[in-house]
Amino acid sequence: MTTTAASLDQLCVNTIRALAIDTVQNANSGHPGLPLGAAPMAYALWTRVLRHSPSQPQWKDRDRFVLSAGHGSALLYSLLHLTGYELPLEELKRFRQWESRTPGHPEYRETPGVEVTTGPLGQGFANAVGMAAAEAHLAARFNRPGHDVVDHYTYVIAGDGDLMEGVVHEAAALAGHLRLGKLVCLYDSNAICLGGATNLSYTMDAAKVFEGYGWHVQTVADGNDLDAVTKAVEAAKAVADKPSLVVVRTSIGFGSPKANTFGVHGAPLGAEAVVETKKALGYPSTEPFFVAPEALAEMRKAVERGKAAEAAWRKKVDAYRAAHADLAAELERALSGALPAGWDQDLPKWTPADKPVATRAAGGKVINALAAKVPELFGGSADLNPSTETALKGAGDFESPAFQPADKQGAVGGEWGYAGRNVHFGVREHAMASVSNGIALHGGLVPFSATFFTFADYMRPALRLAALMQAHQVFVFTHDSIGVGEDGPTHQPIEQAASLRLIPRLTVVRPADANETAGAWRFAMAHPGPVALLLTRQAVPVLEGTASADVAKGGYVLADCEGTPDVLLVATGSEVHLAVEAKAILAGRGVKARVVSLPSTELFDAQPQAYRDAVLPPSVLARVAVEAGVPAGWEKYAGAFGAIVAIENRFGASAPLKVVMEKYGFTAANVAEKAAAVVAALPQKLAAVGLRKA
Amino acid sequence: MTTTAASLDQLCVNTIRALAIDTVQNANSGHPGLPLGAAPMAYALWTRVLRHSPSQPQWKDRDRFVLSAGHGSALLYSLLHLTGYELPLEELKRFRQWESRTPGHPEYRETPGVEVTTGPLGQGFANAVGMAAAEAHLAARFNRPGHDVVDHYTYVIAGDGDLMEGVVHEAAALAGHLRLGKLVCLYDSNAICLGGATNLSYTMDAAKVFEGYGWHVQTVADGNDLDAVTKAVEAAKAVADKPSLVVVRTSIGFGSPKANTFGVHGAPLGAEAVVETKKALGYPSTEPFFVAPEALAEMRKAVERGKAAEAAWRKKVDAYRAAHADLAAELERALSGALPAGWDQDLPKWTPADKPVATRAAGGKVINALAAKVPELFGGSADLNPSTETALKGAGDFESPAFQPADKQGAVGGEWGYAGRNVHFGVREHAMASVSNGIALHGGLVPFSATFFTFADYMRPALRLAALMQAHQVFVFTHDSIGVGEDGPTHQPIEQAASLRLIPRLTVVRPADANETAGAWRFAMAHPGPVALLLTRQAVPVLEGTASADVAKGGYVLADCEGTPDVLLVATGSEVHLAVEAKAILAGRGVKARVVSLPSTELFDAQPQAYRDAVLPPSVLARVAVEAGVPAGWEKYAGAFGAIVAIENRFGASAPLKVVMEKYGFTAANVAEKAAAVVAALPQKLAAVGLRKA
Repeated sequence: MTTTAASLDQLCVNTIRALAIDTVQNANSGHPGLPLGAAPMAYALWTRVLRHSPSQPQWKDRDRFVLSAGHGSALLYSLLHLTGYELPLEELKRFRQWESRTPGHPEYRETPGVEVTTGPLGQGFANAVGMAAAEAHLAARFNRPGHDVVDHYTYVIAGDGDLMEGVVHEAAALAGHLRLGKLVCLYDSNAICLGGATNLSYTMDAAKVFEGYGWHVQTVADGNDLDAVTKAVEAAKAVADKPSLVVVRTSIGFGSPKANTFGVHGAPLGAEAVVETKKALGYPSTEPFFVAPEALAEMRKAVERGKAAEAAWRKKVDAYRAAHADLAAELERALSGALPAGWDQDLPKWTPADKPVATRAAGGKVINALAAKVPELFGGSADLNPSTETALKGAGDFESPAFQPADKQGAVGGEWGYAGRNVHFGVREHAMASVSNGIALHGGLVPFSATFFTFADYMRPALRLAALMQAHQVFVFTHDSIGVGEDGPTHQPIEQAASLRLIPRLTVVRPADANETAGAWRFAMAHPGPVALLLTRQAVPVLEGTASADVAKGGYVLADCEGTPDVLLVATGSEVHLAVEAKAILAGRGVKARVVSLPSTELFDAQPQAYRDAVLPPSVLARVAVEAGVPAGWEKYAGAFGAIVAIENRFGASAPLKVVMEKYGFTAANVAEKAAAVVAALPQKLAAVGLRKA
Repeated sequence: MTTTAASLDQLCVNTIRALAIDTVQNANSGHPGLPLGAAPMAYALWTRVLRHSPSQPQWKDRDRFVLSAGHGSALLYSLLHLTGYELPLEELKRFRQWESRTPGHPEYRETPGVEVTTGPLGQGFANAVGMAAAEAHLAARFNRPGHDVVDHYTYVIAGDGDLMEGVVHEAAALAGHLRLGKLVCLYDSNAICLGGATNLSYTMDAAKVFEGYGWHVQTVADGNDLDAVTKAVEAAKAVADKPSLVVVRTSIGFGSPKANTFGVHGAPLGAEAVVETKKALGYPSTEPFFVAPEALAEMRKAVERGKAAEAAWRKKVDAYRAAHADLAAELERALSGALPAGWDQDLPKWTPADKPVATRAAGGKVINALAAKVPELFGGSADLNPSTETALKGAGDFESPAFQPADKQGAVGGEWGYAGRNVHFGVREHAMASVSNGIALHGGLVPFSATFFTFADYMRPALRLAALMQAHQVFVFTHDSIGVGEDGPTHQPIEQAASLRLIPRLTVVRPADANETAGAWRFAMAHPGPVALLLTRQAVPVLEGTASADVAKGGYVLADCEGTPDVLLVATGSEVHLAVEAKAILAGRGVKARVVSLPSTELFDAQPQAYRDAVLPPSVLARVAVEAGVPAGWEKYAGAFGAIVAIENRFGASAPLKVVMEKYGFTAANVAEKAAAVVAALPQKLAAVGLRKA
């Protein structure tokens, strides 16, 4: 019996391997090494531990699984197919082909059962930390004695490459600090990476390092030992107050002629080697895509197990609903992603009579007004709360209950322990964004994260993935220009605004004043994808005519003139008030100017042509765009005959902000000067290119 | 005597503190906390250990000092002034003012004695790893028995914030692996960061983690104990085969009323608190900028010590020159930064008759041709040598001698141990770039680093600093577009080319073919600042007329027509050959097209107006720009009436490259189609904005 069971297990493991190498070979592209080495741990995890429901991939209380080593996608696709997810063999045969459900690296939203887009190393691990944090928070908020309706684990398989990435170390240190006991990482330690043996560059003692981060660490000496892997994972689950790392020693490309060499990492084995491998593994057939029927039957049991597990959970929820109707309704709403009724009522408003206010300060008021209505707003900053003004007042710190005050130990819900909503990410910008991606993908929460805008550079790989995955969250970037002043060029963004606008499907909003800031937050909360808010350090006046509602259009006429304008002044953020003041100066000189506030170029460009032409009349060729950053991106609004007041080919400087702004030409007088010059030079500019007014 | 010495030491430490807090208070901006807490370790290091020559800050064999916690700049400026660097008290009084030599964060090139620009946390630490690596390599190449002409240490002071950053963990793991024994980090462990006590987010066991990375770790329990700090640093120096971390427990804001609170981290103390602090420290005067004369006299002894040390080194060099004239001359040349005579002779050339070649492959041939002539070319990839083709053949691996083959142990020079020139950075893109910055700043080497272009995002903070510091080095980015194919959107750059072009003073070159690749490398070697090369994964034809020399102009006419062109086709990289083919298609339809290859927009924009107008005649309004990336940045070349063939508002896709390229419209037929449409639509477009041909 045990031998039969053992041999059936072995057949299942080899079926995963065979299917994965066939998938890669058929595409003649991909990574066979990881699936061959990691198939046993993946099989043990997926069939003996993981609580998932292949017929209901979206079951809310499922365990989460992340393949951080995304290049091993063929392993994941094999598992999904064999355990009964909606991924037919035909899709595995279309691996890495146009519009298949089996892209080269796993892609969120493209394949049922894929929880997150992975491939850029380190990201999946950090996403998993976010998923575990989200589970801990929702469990603390919603579970009640006898009612554990939020109760699942997060598992991740990571490779040597992941563990070399800094973002993993940031996220691991954070997870250890937070004591996320329901996070388990299986580390596929094969000592081979793409460039060669890892000892060329990698000799760290991972166990010791992770223990230093506060993790529980175990080692499995033989990655082919299914029982050892299973026991280790069960032991990891038993440690409730520490995340667990299981170092699993494996052989990359196990069973293949090129086993344990980097040649097997990222290139197909070749048809002959595929056959040799199957023979070496004792696989019953060498026929491509042959799936051993007994193995399929055994692994498909996951479907029924999953249905039973989900049904049991639904019973739990019914009992919970009976005992805690309001909490149950609130949990359901939060998990559905719908914002609470009236979420955007009572947002603060400002008037020009108010004294100038930094948009970061306005943002602080807005986020607190929102937080009072939207309990799922959850996040924090990279050790900059006092500067980014993103602290949620009275909402508690998200931390291990071990750090709770003695008299609050055992407190349920409220603002204590994991129920706290202010996340202290530490000076870990990259992990902050990657972890926030994981929180957003988990569901039930709308994460926000904040730091100085110049440090958006540290977060860029995660910002890109947030856009690629359309993870709903808000990135708050304060100190958004040379207006930072004394801290100097390392802390003064110059190219950052333009560069975030380049990321497809990331919406960037740079509000002109307090009221536009409220509008930007309102838009961000309702928008399904990621939004970056660029806010000032310095105070800016509250302008006449800025309306929260207009922000969603991306741009609008803020201040107009009689009849057709002689010149259009287009500006964003802290430069809009300069344009308004320049308009008055120009009026004094008989030049009619229209001021257009353009807080979001992406949103404006998405408006109907008629609206855009109404705001920026195509026939008005004299235009000046103003932004305290690089000129790139403004050509299309300034046009071929306009000018751009920007920062060209240089960085910022350390000095009081008024001095820096003036030295760099960000004054109303200079904007007016440039505008008058553009108007005056228009005829010559046209003539120079052989044109004239019709 | 000892008491006198001890009290004089104490007076010196307090003079550093007093000067630092006066500097911050006078500017009413800055960070007093770190200088007050770290002054003792800094004093011990600078006056008892550091081999430096204040009157000759550029002495080649000086020890390097990096203040990674750059916000503590007032500490560094105090040290520089007191030990006799050319930084008068007046400059400290102009702290954080326009064009002062004392900017808010230390800036390389702005202040004598400042080795590197720091402020973005973690960077300085990684730069220091690069400096130590450079020293190890140059020592291995040039030192000979009895002649240690390259023999200095690298010291870094890092804070809690640094140790939270992933780039520090990447760099520390690399330094531990490389066993860089002459790197010593003093960790200012004060348990306070900007947002509050570090235990809000930071509880890692730094000693254990660094031991896991292979570091030698010591702890000094009292950061005010000068002898304990000195002993620890001496002990660290004595460990030759491991980098050393000295955990120094300090009190942030020591002596001030706000000591040990985050309130003292980043805001001036206030005039009263400054006075209180000086009194608490027992400082002889509370007068602003009072410098105790005995302390100044004592610390200024660094000048004479430095002259003596440098003189002793010059004697060593003379003896070395006598014994090894060629090596001495070569060392002098390398340290001077001058390239060897004939460095760019014998670069490979290709002809259109050759079969298509990927520019990454051409780059591999070029870098090896250069490496044969330029011994200071030193670098590697983030575990992607087989893919980036940047391995220097026969140049050996840069690694600890401990990893050398037994029969090569003790080999001098050659390609063994630290004399190897191929650096294996591991999957640590961010550290790769930061470490390369340090290598470049050390001098004597021209570093290069390589990875897939999409992962440039991981390196962005270091790329920005390379540009800000104008560190001479080459970043090689291969797999530069959707031409990557099967690996899919996570591995296909879309916005990266446009986004690197936004970084001021970073030169980006995207060559069209093998010959332009040779030109790009030639330019990069001779250019004093950082250059990024964007190279294809896929083969591209060698084009008629691409000339290595033209690359330095940024753009040139590659293929022209008779008379005035009807349309200009502007393209870069792998899209240039599409423009050439489109030109032929258009000719068949009676449309005269000129093809402009624009490998570097920055270089082209820097050309005289006359040259730019000759290449892109302003009167030719029908223009099509082609690049397999975002359209942003091309508006200014396509003009208001042209078109851009690019990738708008979407990411890439996983499929064979030919399929992806075709689906995304990167075919000669589509380019020709767009061009014909632009020519046809020009009159209507002009009319729409009220213009016509004069």
